[in-house]
Amino acid sequence: MGGQENGHVKDGILERLAKGPVIGDGSMCMTLEKRGYCRAGPWTPEAVLMYPDAVRQLLREYLRAGSDVLQTPCFYSSDGLLESRFKGKKTQFTSYDLNQAACKMAREVADEGDAIVCGSLSPVLSYFKNKDMEGARKEFENQLQPFIDNNVDFVLAEFFAHVEEIELCVEVIKRANKPIAATMRIGPMGDSNGVSVEECAVRMARTGAEIIGINCLYDIHTQLKVIKRMKAALDKEGLKPYLMIQALGWLCPEVENNLTGYLALPEAPLDLDSRCLTRTEVHKFARDAWEAGVHYIGGCCGIEPHAIRAMSQELAEERGRSPPTEDMTPAFSKYLRESMISYNRFKADNKDHWFNLRPGTGRLKNPATSDVYEDCSFDMSEDL
Amino acid sequence: MGGQENGHVKDGILERLAKGPVIGDGSMCMTLEKRGYCRAGPWTPEAVLMYPDAVRQLLREYLRAGSDVLQTPCFYSSDGLLESRFKGKKTQFTSYDLNQAACKMAREVADEGDAIVCGSLSPVLSYFKNKDMEGARKEFENQLQPFIDNNVDFVLAEFFAHVEEIELCVEVIKRANKPIAATMRIGPMGDSNGVSVEECAVRMARTGAEIIGINCLYDIHTQLKVIKRMKAALDKEGLKPYLMIQALGWLCPEVENNLTGYLALPEAPLDLDSRCLTRTEVHKFARDAWEAGVHYIGGCCGIEPHAIRAMSQELAEERGRSPPTEDMTPAFSKYLRESMISYNRFKADNKDHWFNLRPGTGRLKNPATSDVYEDCSFDMSEDL
Amino acid sequence: MGGQENGHVKDGILERLAKGPVIGDGSMCMTLEKRGYCRAGPWTPEAVLMYPDAVRQLLREYLRAGSDVLQTPCFYSSDGLLESRFKGKKTQFTSYDLNQAACKMAREVADEGDAIVCGSLSPVLSYFKNKDMEGARKEFENQLQPFIDNNVDFVLAEFFAHVEEIELCVEVIKRANKPIAATMRIGPMGDSNGVSVEECAVRMARTGAEIIGINCLYDIHTQLKVIKRMKAALDKEGLKPYLMIQALGWLCPEVENNLTGYLALPEAPLDLDSRCLTRTEVHKFARDAWEAGVHYIGGCCGIEPHAIRAMSQELAEERGRSPPTEDMTPAFSKYLRESMISYNRFKADNKDHWFNLRPGTGRLKNPATSDVYEDCSFDMSEDL
Amino acid sequence: MGGQENGHVKDGILERLAKGPVIGDGSMCMTLEKRGYCRAGPWTPEAVLMYPDAVRQLLREYLRAGSDVLQTPCFYSSDGLLESRFKGKKTQFTSYDLNQAACKMAREVADEGDAIVCGSLSPVLSYFKNKDMEGARKEFENQLQPFIDNNVDFVLAEFFAHVEEIELCVEVIKRANKPIAATMRIGPMGDSNGVSVEECAVRMARTGAEIIGINCLYDIHTQLKVIKRMKAALDKEGLKPYLMIQALGWLCPEVENNLTGYLALPEAPLDLDSRCLTRTEVHKFARDAWEAGVHYIGGCCGIEPHAIRAMSQELAEERGRSPPTEDMTPAFSKYLRESMISYNRFKADNKDHWFNLRPGTGRLKNPATSDVYEDCSFDMSEDL
Repeated sequence: MGGQENGHVKDGILERLAKGPVIGDGSMCMTLEKRGYCRAGPWTPEAVLMYPDAVRQLLREYLRAGSDVLQTPCFYSSDGLLESRFKGKKTQFTSYDLNQAACKMAREVADEGDAIVCGSLSPVLSYFKNKDMEGARKEFENQLQPFIDNNVDFVLAEFFAHVEEIELCVEVIKRANKPIAATMRIGPMGDSNGVSVEECAVRMARTGAEIIGINCLYDIHTQLKVIKRMKAALDKEGLKPYLMIQALGWLCPEVENNLTGYLALPEAPLDLDSRCLTRTEVHKFARDAWEAGVHYIGGCCGIEPHAIRAMSQELAEERGRSPPTEDMTPAFSKYLRESMISYNRFKADNKDHWFNLRPGTGRLKNPATSDVYEDCSFDMSEDL
Repeated sequence: MGGQENGHVKDGILERLAKGPVIGDGSMCMTLEKRGYCRAGPWTPEAVLMYPDAVRQLLREYLRAGSDVLQTPCFYSSDGLLESRFKGKKTQFTSYDLNQAACKMAREVADEGDAIVCGSLSPVLSYFKNKDMEGARKEFENQLQPFIDNNVDFVLAEFFAHVEEIELCVEVIKRANKPIAATMRIGPMGDSNGVSVEECAVRMARTGAEIIGINCLYDIHTQLKVIKRMKAALDKEGLKPYLMIQALGWLCPEVENNLTGYLALPEAPLDLDSRCLTRTEVHKFARDAWEAGVHYIGGCCGIEPHAIRAMSQELAEERGRSPPTEDMTPAFSKYLRESMISYNRFKADNKDHWFNLRPGTGRLKNPATSDVYEDCSFDMSEDL
Repeated sequence: MGGQENGHVKDGILERLAKGPVIGDGSMCMTLEKRGYCRAGPWTPEAVLMYPDAVRQLLREYLRAGSDVLQTPCFYSSDGLLESRFKGKKTQFTSYDLNQAACKMAREVADEGDAIVCGSLSPVLSYFKNKDMEGARKEFENQLQPFIDNNVDFVLAEFFAHVEEIELCVEVIKRANKPIAATMRIGPMGDSNGVSVEECAVRMARTGAEIIGINCLYDIHTQLKVIKRMKAALDKEGLKPYLMIQALGWLCPEVENNLTGYLALPEAPLDLDSRCLTRTEVHKFARDAWEAGVHYIGGCCGIEPHAIRAMSQELAEERGRSPPTEDMTPAFSKYLRESMISYNRFKADNKDHWFNLRPGTGRLKNPATSDVYEDCSFDMSEDL
Repeated sequence: MGGQENGHVKDGILERLAKGPVIGDGSMCMTLEKRGYCRAGPWTPEAVLMYPDAVRQLLREYLRAGSDVLQTPCFYSSDGLLESRFKGKKTQFTSYDLNQAACKMAREVADEGDAIVCGSLSPVLSYFKNKDMEGARKEFENQLQPFIDNNVDFVLAEFFAHVEEIELCVEVIKRANKPIAATMRIGPMGDSNGVSVEECAVRMARTGAEIIGINCLYDIHTQLKVIKRMKAALDKEGLKPYLMIQALGWLCPEVENNLTGYLALPEAPLDLDSRCLTRTEVHKFARDAWEAGVHYIGGCCGIEPHAIRAMSQELAEERGRSPPTEDMTPAFSKYLRESMISYNRFKADNKDHWFNLRPGTGRLKNPATSDVYEDCSFDMSEDL
């Protein structure tokens, strides 16, 4: 089922999930923006064509950090959104070209190691603007076709705000005859139509997707609360899909009960650095997620390579392997023993030191939380 | 004097400084470690040979962020330190090979744009262990030779803790007949022999270095205090070198009066993410530094490409140019106007919004400052 | 209906509420403990007999701060609790003696000004231990009798955790033929039997109590959320009791969803000082509460005289009067104009300065929130 | 030498200091302001005549909290300041009347227990405005006379900003033939004329004052740093006066290097509550001060009775006695064992729990430090 490397057939996603923790990849748009290759806000996937070396490099860093899966870097690459983005400009990029390039690039890097490729679909404008189910179906089909043509290893529907849209999306995906994952970007308040966390979980599982869960918008502490509620609801119905979290890379407790999550912060999207998870905080999250029954643990916005590495290192024993860069970057670096700083030598490979630390913020005049923008919502201004 | 690009002779460092703000590059070791290509703590420059694509990519990101200068990525690449690092192992890397590769790579990327190349020397073990001035001179000469052979555009002595060592280093560098920059990694307490900030400044200027200043170890607020004291002392003596700061990327007010700066933090070097400067904080720093009379503004540990970009964007008017990625990543992104999030549209290109923000830390249970390790010092354990 | 002062008949509680904001009094047990006259934790009302001067002084401070109402200082002075407290000791204090003394003292101080006296009943052990409704009725009757004998101006049932217990209590109180107030110490999760905030509000109003609301356990921000939910539920049912909040004096957002409120904090009850409301924070609360439709605004644990004064000063215009100490202590002191400190003169009577301030905590190494004790509950150990 | 109680001659201040830690009393003006009896900012001592019961009550609380010493409550009761305060009004209060009343009241309350009385002198306007030494001498003599007439047990010169003024003051005090204490309100920057901490200490000791030290303006952590520097300087000169700290009740690290200390905070003087020391923080301070060699430990602005009690409880063993209210309010209350809250029972008399706690601030949106007012200074506007 999985990809091939040197004639060896790799395990597919379901085989991997059956064996233990699977580590996903991390942030693409937000990280490429910091590196200078992507626009902030109206994220578009054109970097895959414009700056392939930079995108390939980032994918490679995730591979080296221990990712089992590389997603095709084509978020929001759907007809409606691309059209809207390039309205009034000489459109340069089609969904088909972008997704083709994304598939080839993901496969190329995945085959430098043991990773497999996941084709990723995201919400579409037809549903968002008009709840037009037929238009949405068509957009999903167009997103999906390159994944079929390029024989990705499985398909993911991600970042959905409405359970009825993801139900439709999964229905379309079935045509590919691949394992299916489905994640919503919801918090404790449930979906944007008011469907509860519990009902979202049950309905996602009932689509037949083998893997369900959440991604983005809420911080890891909130995400853990939500996934536990999902699990309890699934258990009650006797449903047993694999659970998945794509973690957000920033702490933002104040938006837990806001429908747009971290996007309601004044710092988003350009000034979130002070909220970045440390890698030890990621270690703890990976452990907590695994203990909560989550088998697929990866990253979303803000999770950079060292954070993915922290996940794969924390669960190295359960996975039976460490990330390929272990010789350069072991967890809680044993190489600190060779430091000229006495205190560094004390910290070397000293998990207790790192786990007992509550990292300072360095900011004497800054608050723990910001004033959240109450009216923040996903919408479309007249002229978009 | 400067490098060449397409037959066009670039301005040298002194010409650039005379015209306005010069933007340096940013963090190498710490950033490459996060990306998986470098060891934490006993930083060594072998990535330049082992993972040239990854190093080249990072240099390129700085170029695109607006750096005028790319430093040769060969920090701590001196005979004594390399020997110490690889003691008991089959030594794989010589100082000469590393510096050669570093020079070629820096030039290659610099010539993709308008940047020039700076050869960088760092403190040596001969001085550190035994205050052996003759051994130190020899080590500096060996570091310098590849810079002469490769015709770098100017030479920098950086990260010095003792003014007498940097005096010796500059004396050696003069042999290259290039402009000279010299920076110490000192805070308000002065150098590690107890020489005051003021005396360090005056003595550095009297070596004949055209550019002097500070780098690393202390946060931007402390660095600004120190450079102002330096300027006052230089003014008093009628000395007029260009001033230079390579900023630290993390906030750490609690180590201001500690000789090892941020290295005395429990979070160093693996868990500093919560202290990262936001790009708006960097904007303010760049403005403050320029107004304090600093002409060379760059980054040291923790300053990543988006921070360098913030510096060059803040001073774009004074520099008469914006970074080459301006079409993708303008300051305070105008592209947020195209966002589907109403709040993002409000923030687009809205400098007031960003400058008035005191970013939250997202950490309800974490303090502003950590317990500093009082006995932290640069030393060598017996077996290093 | 109200008390008498110099032959002048004072307005009763309902007349006052009809005219505008009524200001209650503040913390007794917690404040007397800080002053040295009361035990921490198992609060008992014996100070009224043991240290009458100290109790009278505190009541007088509330009167001077602008309180319309002085409650009889006899919290938890019920048969069961007193018996339990003094078990194994030669019992020194009976409920009857304590309540008699409390009534006389409250009247004595109230008559130094324009205040009226409120007899206060609290939950009883019969209900708490065994849900023994008949025993509870008897205990309430015994608490009530001295209030009838001393002709208090109205009666309050306060600090109830269970709506069924307060329903019984109000039923008993009716015998006194006085206006009735009823407050529960509940947060967003509702009562300790799982009855929602909304249902508690409606059931309290349906007892016939003219004034209903909440007191203690949750901070002012949480209290405002709860009272708004109560109001919405009452409005829906067409019920129009006066609303009442007795504010808590400490900030503690982390216990919002914990049934024991601030008692689940590690700092309770001895080390809460860092959480004290500033008087400006109290000004804002008083304004917000009044705007939310709350007519009876007072204090509970941690609200000291300067905070009560802030309430009466904030609403001075609506009340048509300022607290009697206005000549010594006007809001945002105009006397600062006479200070020898220039900055003080700037702050004098400068409401903008005070309202724009987010007071610092002065604690660099302390978090915003504590680890809440999850299993904290009101219970009785075997030997109590 | 000391006062008398029931025919028993009390120990004087020097006997007490020789035996072990002496506990002073706490805040008067700031606490009386909160209670409604004093004006904020231009503190004047008229409460002693206008509201004697309230002042007496506060003194009594300090006595019960374990104070060895009650100071005459007459801060700033000197001719020049009273005249300035009441300029243009029909002056109601003379220095002589106020100090007489203060002496009588302090003695009356002191004789309810084992405390002695300290006459307190403060800086005078003659020096402050014109450095008029002769005028200052006269003002000090007038302040002193009632202390002689009423036979106070010793005399304190406190809150001095200039060592030359306190030298003069001590010279005047000698006339009383009583033990002398002298404290300045200085921080690490030394006195307001630029005299260093070390020189201030040595010069105060050389006046012949048996007790010297600091009070007010800087928080306990800063105060401890300053007293240690004083001790080192005195040791170097072979001087051995008793050391004294009157602690400030608020945390304010940001003003350490500001000449007006906490008065430069935007929160001063009305909104400092969020900075209040908890009693456990006071326990630690008392222990640290004693271990640093400080024999006289008391309180200044913001230190209320429960904080003084914490000091005397922390040092109960060294003092051979506990405060008289120990049966009501033992340290870390053993009575919590009788609480209905399980968590309280765990905390009862559990010093480990309290000492390991870093109290939360409860403020998610507030910073650790405020913006300090840089130009803050003691001055006199034209019209004062």
